[in-house]
Amino acid sequence: MFYHVKELQYNAKPDKPDAVYAKKLQEILGGQFGEISVMMQYLFQGWNCRGEKKYRDMLLDIGTEEIAHVEMISTMIAQLLDQAPAREQEQAAQNPVLNSAMGGNQDVQDQIVKTVLSGMSPQHMIVSGLGAQPVDSVGYPWNSRYMIASGNMLADFRANLNAESQGRLQVARLYEMTTDNGVRDMLSFLLARDTMHQNQWMAAIEELEQNQKPIVPSTFPQELEKQEVSYSFMNFSAGEDSKAGRWANGQSMDGQASFEYVAKPEAMGQTPELTPAPPYVHGTPPTAGQAQAQYEQEAIQSH
Amino acid sequence: MFYHVKELQYNAKPDKPDAVYAKKLQEILGGQFGEISVMMQYLFQGWNCRGEKKYRDMLLDIGTEEIAHVEMISTMIAQLLDQAPAREQEQAAQNPVLNSAMGGNQDVQDQIVKTVLSGMSPQHMIVSGLGAQPVDSVGYPWNSRYMIASGNMLADFRANLNAESQGRLQVARLYEMTTDNGVRDMLSFLLARDTMHQNQWMAAIEELEQNQKPIVPSTFPQELEKQEVSYSFMNFSAGEDSKAGRWANGQSMDGQASFEYVAKPEAMGQTPELTPAPPYVHGTPPTAGQAQAQYEQEAIQSH
Amino acid sequence: MFYHVKELQYNAKPDKPDAVYAKKLQEILGGQFGEISVMMQYLFQGWNCRGEKKYRDMLLDIGTEEIAHVEMISTMIAQLLDQAPAREQEQAAQNPVLNSAMGGNQDVQDQIVKTVLSGMSPQHMIVSGLGAQPVDSVGYPWNSRYMIASGNMLADFRANLNAESQGRLQVARLYEMTTDNGVRDMLSFLLARDTMHQNQWMAAIEELEQNQKPIVPSTFPQELEKQEVSYSFMNFSAGEDSKAGRWANGQSMDGQASFEYVAKPEAMGQTPELTPAPPYVHGTPPTAGQAQAQYEQEAIQSH
Amino acid sequence: MFYHVKELQYNAKPDKPDAVYAKKLQEILGGQFGEISVMMQYLFQGWNCRGEKKYRDMLLDIGTEEIAHVEMISTMIAQLLDQAPAREQEQAAQNPVLNSAMGGNQDVQDQIVKTVLSGMSPQHMIVSGLGAQPVDSVGYPWNSRYMIASGNMLADFRANLNAESQGRLQVARLYEMTTDNGVRDMLSFLLARDTMHQNQWMAAIEELEQNQKPIVPSTFPQELEKQEVSYSFMNFSAGEDSKAGRWANGQSMDGQASFEYVAKPEAMGQTPELTPAPPYVHGTPPTAGQAQAQYEQEAIQSH
Amino acid sequence: MFYHVKELQYNAKPDKPDAVYAKKLQEILGGQFGEISVMMQYLFQGWNCRGEKKYRDMLLDIGTEEIAHVEMISTMIAQLLDQAPAREQEQAAQNPVLNSAMGGNQDVQDQIVKTVLSGMSPQHMIVSGLGAQPVDSVGYPWNSRYMIASGNMLADFRANLNAESQGRLQVARLYEMTTDNGVRDMLSFLLARDTMHQNQWMAAIEELEQNQKPIVPSTFPQELEKQEVSYSFMNFSAGEDSKAGRWANGQSMDGQASFEYVAKPEAMGQTPELTPAPPYVHGTPPTAGQAQAQYEQEAIQSH
Amino acid sequence: MFYHVKELQYNAKPDKPDAVYAKKLQEILGGQFGEISVMMQYLFQGWNCRGEKKYRDMLLDIGTEEIAHVEMISTMIAQLLDQAPAREQEQAAQNPVLNSAMGGNQDVQDQIVKTVLSGMSPQHMIVSGLGAQPVDSVGYPWNSRYMIASGNMLADFRANLNAESQGRLQVARLYEMTTDNGVRDMLSFLLARDTMHQNQWMAAIEELEQNQKPIVPSTFPQELEKQEVSYSFMNFSAGEDSKAGRWANGQSMDGQASFEYVAKPEAMGQTPELTPAPPYVHGTPPTAGQAQAQYEQEAIQSH
Repeated sequence: MFYHVKELQYNAKPDKPDAVYAKKLQEILGGQFGEISVMMQYLFQGWNCRGEKKYRDMLLDIGTEEIAHVEMISTMIAQLLDQAPAREQEQAAQNPVLNSAMGGNQDVQDQIVKTVLSGMSPQHMIVSGLGAQPVDSVGYPWNSRYMIASGNMLADFRANLNAESQGRLQVARLYEMTTDNGVRDMLSFLLARDTMHQNQWMAAIEELEQNQKPIVPSTFPQELEKQEVSYSFMNFSAGEDSKAGRWANGQSMDGQASFEYVAKPEAMGQTPELTPAPPYVHGTPPTAGQAQAQYEQEAIQSH
Repeated sequence: MFYHVKELQYNAKPDKPDAVYAKKLQEILGGQFGEISVMMQYLFQGWNCRGEKKYRDMLLDIGTEEIAHVEMISTMIAQLLDQAPAREQEQAAQNPVLNSAMGGNQDVQDQIVKTVLSGMSPQHMIVSGLGAQPVDSVGYPWNSRYMIASGNMLADFRANLNAESQGRLQVARLYEMTTDNGVRDMLSFLLARDTMHQNQWMAAIEELEQNQKPIVPSTFPQELEKQEVSYSFMNFSAGEDSKAGRWANGQSMDGQASFEYVAKPEAMGQTPELTPAPPYVHGTPPTAGQAQAQYEQEAIQSH
Repeated sequence: MFYHVKELQYNAKPDKPDAVYAKKLQEILGGQFGEISVMMQYLFQGWNCRGEKKYRDMLLDIGTEEIAHVEMISTMIAQLLDQAPAREQEQAAQNPVLNSAMGGNQDVQDQIVKTVLSGMSPQHMIVSGLGAQPVDSVGYPWNSRYMIASGNMLADFRANLNAESQGRLQVARLYEMTTDNGVRDMLSFLLARDTMHQNQWMAAIEELEQNQKPIVPSTFPQELEKQEVSYSFMNFSAGEDSKAGRWANGQSMDGQASFEYVAKPEAMGQTPELTPAPPYVHGTPPTAGQAQAQYEQEAIQSH
Repeated sequence: MFYHVKELQYNAKPDKPDAVYAKKLQEILGGQFGEISVMMQYLFQGWNCRGEKKYRDMLLDIGTEEIAHVEMISTMIAQLLDQAPAREQEQAAQNPVLNSAMGGNQDVQDQIVKTVLSGMSPQHMIVSGLGAQPVDSVGYPWNSRYMIASGNMLADFRANLNAESQGRLQVARLYEMTTDNGVRDMLSFLLARDTMHQNQWMAAIEELEQNQKPIVPSTFPQELEKQEVSYSFMNFSAGEDSKAGRWANGQSMDGQASFEYVAKPEAMGQTPELTPAPPYVHGTPPTAGQAQAQYEQEAIQSH
Repeated sequence: MFYHVKELQYNAKPDKPDAVYAKKLQEILGGQFGEISVMMQYLFQGWNCRGEKKYRDMLLDIGTEEIAHVEMISTMIAQLLDQAPAREQEQAAQNPVLNSAMGGNQDVQDQIVKTVLSGMSPQHMIVSGLGAQPVDSVGYPWNSRYMIASGNMLADFRANLNAESQGRLQVARLYEMTTDNGVRDMLSFLLARDTMHQNQWMAAIEELEQNQKPIVPSTFPQELEKQEVSYSFMNFSAGEDSKAGRWANGQSMDGQASFEYVAKPEAMGQTPELTPAPPYVHGTPPTAGQAQAQYEQEAIQSH
Repeated sequence: MFYHVKELQYNAKPDKPDAVYAKKLQEILGGQFGEISVMMQYLFQGWNCRGEKKYRDMLLDIGTEEIAHVEMISTMIAQLLDQAPAREQEQAAQNPVLNSAMGGNQDVQDQIVKTVLSGMSPQHMIVSGLGAQPVDSVGYPWNSRYMIASGNMLADFRANLNAESQGRLQVARLYEMTTDNGVRDMLSFLLARDTMHQNQWMAAIEELEQNQKPIVPSTFPQELEKQEVSYSFMNFSAGEDSKAGRWANGQSMDGQASFEYVAKPEAMGQTPELTPAPPYVHGTPPTAGQAQAQYEQEAIQSH
């Protein structure tokens, strides 16, 4: 069960409204790697957790923190949208400087000012009435296929490290895209928390890898896999630039073997041939010999 | 540019058809962590690669291999669907043993046999005519928000390690869900390749982390983040089970500081108060005092 | 900011596992009118609230409660999935009673048992490893176009009343679909809360309608709408059954006029005629007379 | 069955083209609360109607009218797109006034004019060739999860009242966002019809509430719900601002009880503990004592 | 504008309910090539039509007919769902024959009967309350990216021929999947109409191809395309089976040239090399020489 | 299995970066009729092909070529994004000409320059870091419901002809929307290949139609369809403009009959009446007479 307090986890106060930036900021709210994604990912991993108590507790700690991040960014967006104009044409038209710069020509001016706020999301005006939306920076709605809770913590903690890496990258890019000190202050907090969270998942992964083996799932008996190809890098692309990497040389990361570089990988499988579909499927009918005869006989029987 | 050879990378031949399992196998073809996801993820990371040649080459090597995996699983599914019946009721009705077991009661039998193949995807009959589909095991279509190519390789290689971890987990589960030797043979090959690919991304990550710092993006100046909270684990959940983990004790994974456990995290931000929206937004009108007066005046002016 | 306590808001303990019902229960977790929808709807309405404090506070109260409902249902689903078998065939094959009932015929038995658990979601095994998912009962992922926060509270409270009405209806149907006492106990709690929440939104709507007018948005000047048709029921369907309803007789609900029944509504608009597209659009070229000549001239100029 | 007449229900003629506004207008065509949503919602409610004839007839009346609204807005959008230029750069470059205003500097001018029409949807040119699309104002396609036909009319009429409330709100906002008299004329008609339709659903709801009870579904026996919490407002958010509302005081809206304000709601449920997953699920393996021993034994048996 | 009459275009009366088949039938209602798709496709092509009147009129004729098909199939599905049980377990448990067949063993029986109706869509009970839904046979909602109205009629009529071909194929498959005479009667009507509609689009295409040239868009000057490769079949797959087809031999279909078979197609383009991203993008930093120096200098300047 | 070579199939080098155009070009990469769609469509049709070898081979030839087209366009987009600025405001602010043109007024200038690059996709900066994305020109992700592989080649080749027609149309429009010689060079190659591919599918269709009959599926016995309406054009729209087309006159395209024009089509079906739902569905309760009595009795029994 959850409780709410009125204060935000950290300040979310822009210096001034900026409806165009509000749209961009949506990316880290409702985007693939936004705060809603990690909030839902950690909460579901916690609720589904069948492992030790400390993991469930930790997942719900961070999941609960992420709700507060969703709250902060939503609050920021609402303020960035303050006083955003609906009829930007008229507002601009009344601006004497722009008017003069445009030489007084109304048509040209109209065409330009009409787009002054075209970088704003039309839905911020029409749909949410100057409020944040659970969508990304191109207006695509958040959906739950963005997240994973697989029941295997090592797999999921790698998903979490990935999410925090992509997330911090996006926050850093958004930091570069504004000079508003208030916005940057909030982003500096998110950057710091993402630093912690990357560290946290690296620590948790290390702990699990030490208890299990590093290949997920560690419980599947490796003798049941096709071990001839378990450590081979296959070069399917002309040229051998890829031979230079760590992945093609030295001991494998799980310590079980050495990497092998296969310069010219050969096909090991059959040439596929599919049988014709039965007549009731109405696929393409067979065109020659016995197959067709059989097909026609079956077709007669089927009606 | 690409070339195709007719042979599969590895055998994909089931012992016998199994339309119900065909539906389940769709998960690793067109699911969130299926082969289409990694194929597209690696190819786009390769095509967008602005780093050293060996990385682009490596990404296109593995991306090209994944197209072959998509081909293998598609071929397997088509064969698992061979001869799947459309009118399962009748087929079952003609089965003398079932007939007898059901005591000859046609109604009961009908109800049961009607669902004998209800585990089959109806679209495998109606839409694809006994062919594989680029969808997951519940019929949800593959979409490109499953993948990422961010332009930052360390971030992306973590995404790749995640994808191979979730992917191998799902293949292992599907291996447990069948006893068909042909299917298991193909899955044993995929398990082995996923072992390699997890190793590969761990190796590539290690290489990058050694050249850069481990926190993504490594190029963002850490002094610009809110460093007070960069290494603090915050306990937002009653109880302190989460204190026991590696993430709350000892040196941080980036080697820059020590983890700190904040047992009772306090709010550091403002209590949000949003200003009323302008009248042309037609939000909820303000209900008291000056705000309302100003609102009404603006409203009059706006028409 | 939010805090979590370990206890659930109410008990979520099934009498015994039931993987098929687990899939159905997903509807009120991640469906269009599931708990995730109301949780997100109330939280975003609260965070975006530009109205009186009591509304923001109330919205965050109920939004916070809904997180707890998501937690309860997720926990229930995970337990309904306990011990769900992967290879149901074998498990069933070892059942002596079924074996005997089937007369020992392995093929028939195989066909039947293969589907015994076909009502289970394959993703509950393959993807979430016996955990709840933020999807509905057909596996479709939750997405944020399910919810609304428009900035106009009267509009939104009607959305909320709708959501609680549809939601309680679905819970009632799910109650009828099980006899598990533990599941029914949890559902009886949700039914009661939905009774409260329907009452709550009816109360809040009444309060707002008394302060404003009942037609949303109440602030748009009614003289700017085409008032001739503001109270007319138009009969576009042969026959006049629809004349019998309250909507076609008596005073309108906003108290401004009387309902009128238009038995034979006539078209009031133009017959549309669109001009041909310019040549650079490469639409269908005009086929006769002057239009074509002009089109061809423009086409020549455009390259 | 349906028939079409060539005339529109009401005029849809803009004063002049405006490709940027055309994109915004898409919201009330193919958005969450656009005309396609209500058209489909009413038609499906009508076709699925198992109630009295007058309801089915009324639903098909209004559903049929909504097809005409879709037609009007589509026609309007096509005309707003008339003559929209593909190569806006060149067109702008040939404009002497802009040219002069920009001081003749080609680079700056190019950068600006390139975006003059950037508010236009690129798909209006590339995909639909100056035609309307069934998408919203950010280009997101209409999908049928926007609508509901639940088989319970009281629930559905609340959905309808919600749809007409959100819809009229959006039309009002779009009215504010243009000064084109032709567009405003059409919107004034839609505003009036939405006034009627809000009145209509309020009337139909009143009629149903009088015949049934107001809590949906009225047929579920209230003694089966957890009645202790059926009328309690729970304060999950610090502070008691929410105590001031109608929802926390006085008789409940269904007339069955009085609202109660629970200032400090306590958890009533268990602390969840999930059992480890079976070995064939390859979740996180248990880490200590008996559970692990049992797990390993099962794992051995399972292969 | 549209009018509705109460009678269906053709009978839609099943012999008896069949909730499992109801789910399958959803494919031709709300699937990719279902009736909603063609209804919306033809209506939007009609409303956007900038060509001759006869085309607009024809498109709206057929679009209006398709609304009637949506109505027929919806009505059929609602009847197939008549009396579908919620608690199938109990119903089955009361069946003496099944009871006896199962040897009286309650557990086994429970497991089997629980799935008797598992082929039914859970949403037909929980969400739509025994009504049709605008979704396909796996419950995926209809969305408007299924349809096209491009403004070029020759292109669109090919889309229409495609839709009617896929559509009739699916109806034929569904005809094979039932023996219900009432259902088959309705399907026989749809099959006939699809025969007409395939003929219709073939006729309309022939008419347009005679007025224009057959390659879409016919108005783009062919001298601006890379004519060296306009008639070459390129063999990118090992082996030359593909040489045997009409596409590799004889005159091209547009009558402009002869098909050419390129047995070993060579790459004609550059080897791509992308420049490093600027520092503010925080992509992978360059690793050697001058590029890195420049990058670092830029990075310093950017903060 | 597949191999990759480093060279592109054809040049993909823009004259200069153009981030706004990069967004538009996304349409033919990840849009409904973009290269990803045809790549996936042809590959899946090939892998699922149960027909003659030459068809499978041909499908995989062209499918493999399309991967190369995806590669070319991705490469082009990445280059169009080269050096795209994050903080366009500052860049513009430093431009002396713009500065002067704006009369030195910082506020106006800020407002304008803020939108100079607003036509750029924010995700090209935030998400992909100046790389191509598998999305369309409005940022909507590619999904596999864009493609079809039905198992019936005649149906599918019509889908392919449609895809190449829509695709070439979109490329032609994009050609008109730029004057960059490098971009136009690449597009001229794609236009030529689409010319070939339209020719190819027309040739393949002709070949199949000669072997089968032209109505898909040709194998369904036409005597089972409702032949009275197989060749009737039905005029559901007031006026008879549609009578003038080829579809209403002369021999049908399949040569089996003559087209018939039905000026006043009559309804041939029943007036639907649905029975009330059982009480456990909690639909709208019946309101009068016997039905209600029966309903209430059932309701009592059901609890």
